[in-house]
Amino acid sequence: MHALLEYLRAEQPHINDALHRLLADLNPLVRPVAEHVLAAGGKRLRPLLLLLTARGLGRHDEDLYPLACALEYLHSATLLHDDILDGAALRRGRPAAHTLFGITPTVLAGDVLLALGNRLMADSGNARLTACISNSIMATATGEIHEIAQVGNVALTLPEYLEIITGKTAWLLQASCQCGAIAAGADPAQEAAAARYGLDLGIAFQLVDDALDYDTTREKAGKPVGADLLEGKVTMPLLYYLAEAPAEEKEALAGLMARLRQGDAPEQLAPLFAPFVQKVAACGGAQKTRDAAREYARTAAEALAAFPAGREKDMLLEAVAYVVARER
Amino acid sequence: MHALLEYLRAEQPHINDALHRLLADLNPLVRPVAEHVLAAGGKRLRPLLLLLTARGLGRHDEDLYPLACALEYLHSATLLHDDILDGAALRRGRPAAHTLFGITPTVLAGDVLLALGNRLMADSGNARLTACISNSIMATATGEIHEIAQVGNVALTLPEYLEIITGKTAWLLQASCQCGAIAAGADPAQEAAAARYGLDLGIAFQLVDDALDYDTTREKAGKPVGADLLEGKVTMPLLYYLAEAPAEEKEALAGLMARLRQGDAPEQLAPLFAPFVQKVAACGGAQKTRDAAREYARTAAEALAAFPAGREKDMLLEAVAYVVARER
Repeated sequence: MHALLEYLRAEQPHINDALHRLLADLNPLVRPVAEHVLAAGGKRLRPLLLLLTARGLGRHDEDLYPLACALEYLHSATLLHDDILDGAALRRGRPAAHTLFGITPTVLAGDVLLALGNRLMADSGNARLTACISNSIMATATGEIHEIAQVGNVALTLPEYLEIITGKTAWLLQASCQCGAIAAGADPAQEAAAARYGLDLGIAFQLVDDALDYDTTREKAGKPVGADLLEGKVTMPLLYYLAEAPAEEKEALAGLMARLRQGDAPEQLAPLFAPFVQKVAACGGAQKTRDAAREYARTAAEALAAFPAGREKDMLLEAVAYVVARER
Repeated sequence: MHALLEYLRAEQPHINDALHRLLADLNPLVRPVAEHVLAAGGKRLRPLLLLLTARGLGRHDEDLYPLACALEYLHSATLLHDDILDGAALRRGRPAAHTLFGITPTVLAGDVLLALGNRLMADSGNARLTACISNSIMATATGEIHEIAQVGNVALTLPEYLEIITGKTAWLLQASCQCGAIAAGADPAQEAAAARYGLDLGIAFQLVDDALDYDTTREKAGKPVGADLLEGKVTMPLLYYLAEAPAEEKEALAGLMARLRQGDAPEQLAPLFAPFVQKVAACGGAQKTRDAAREYARTAAEALAAFPAGREKDMLLEAVAYVVARER
């Protein structure tokens, strides 16, 4: 994985420069909100995926950067809008934008970033790029709504869960890779392979995220666990537990979820939820979820068979390994 | 104006059918929010402008409808997001979407509609259409943020006011007309003329809106006046009054605005604001604003010189007359 990290370290300054530069034309009332969410960091995974797929399929010029940035702007816009939903006070350890700028400027700055992402794609002259990201934004927003609608539902099915995480996370990673292929003028088979790679990588990514939230071995290191449960999110590790839990335990959890939905403060309910985090850990829910992630990682890697051999293909394979191995 | 109303009446069912049909693929969790904001009505001005400009410049096929609908979806998305800002309980006499569906589903449904508008434009294969609407969404959202930032500022200048209304209203009307021209494959001079027509029509439209809010002759008919003032919005009729108001009156108004910004309930402040509505009326602020609207209407009409003679050009001219003459 060393080579991927080196590639990432070499690219991040270029991506960050472009991200900053392309915001220059924004109105001074909007730019600080956009700068704030971008400054909160992140790995720039989506821009990197666009660059890697486009280069892996033969395109290497500098004009890829605005397209790569478009993906990060779209992702940032969804973060701005999501944080409002969650009423989240923090984003990556910093105050969430809406707590600093107010709800409406945050909603509107998100709209500006969505539009900027679209315009950067449109400026390339290829309408298929815009169609691709538009579909992914529709799927991402729909996935978020789906997730909210299912908050606290302990009867959530596995297919429903997979549909939610595919929408809210995997579609934008799919678009990152598919746009890279479109930008490179790839043939239809390669474009489909890039899309498949991005989608399965995205599902694996979210599965690992959801597994980490129940990885109680991290508690010793002071890492928070059980946050999803306190938000009423029913994720795969919990589904493994629920599949074999005694009826009275399921009822007790459903009762807690109902109190959450009725507006009881999560902090107050935390001690009551804590035993369930331990039960999920005890039944191996986190580990089984990682196993599922490895299956998606495998099909993601298989899709890369359509790519020509080369440095970027190697990096894309390393990205798969990174996603399933990550511990934070 | 009879011919325009007939044209509108003939077109509205086609536009509404297409608006409904193109929502069919949306997830059942999103569609009700979208249907709700669309069902609230509106004149479908933006789709109509796209159809009129495209046809006026020589394109008449049915494939114009998805493009026309894209504009209405974008407009609806901005309404969904704006209502959250205003905390508005009503939209066109019906409950605002966020009061029925919650804030986050409303924000996200707005995102879906923005993306759907982009995709319909992108599906036409012409990336310039997407670039055009992306710029207009950026300008619209920026105009809204600008307006919020200036709430209660009685020192607002006329250029600042014009910049706000150009952003929040005129840009999307400009995009409607410019997209019509692009879709028709118009030459650059005609495209520029269509854009100029839409922009100046949009400014005239908002000026008349702002004038109507101070038209105290409508009070007898039970129409509300003074709503903008109660929201702290400084509009052109008020600027005419402020330009010649005694210093102590300006200070008194600034004091009321400060209380509004500090969170005092508008209903409680209404009796204190009422005399200022009368003062604006007494100084002819509404009438002078209508005079200004007529100037923009004149330049909008002039821009149509670049259009070939024909039925649609006549309708676009009637639209100008309608905008400045309207009483509601």
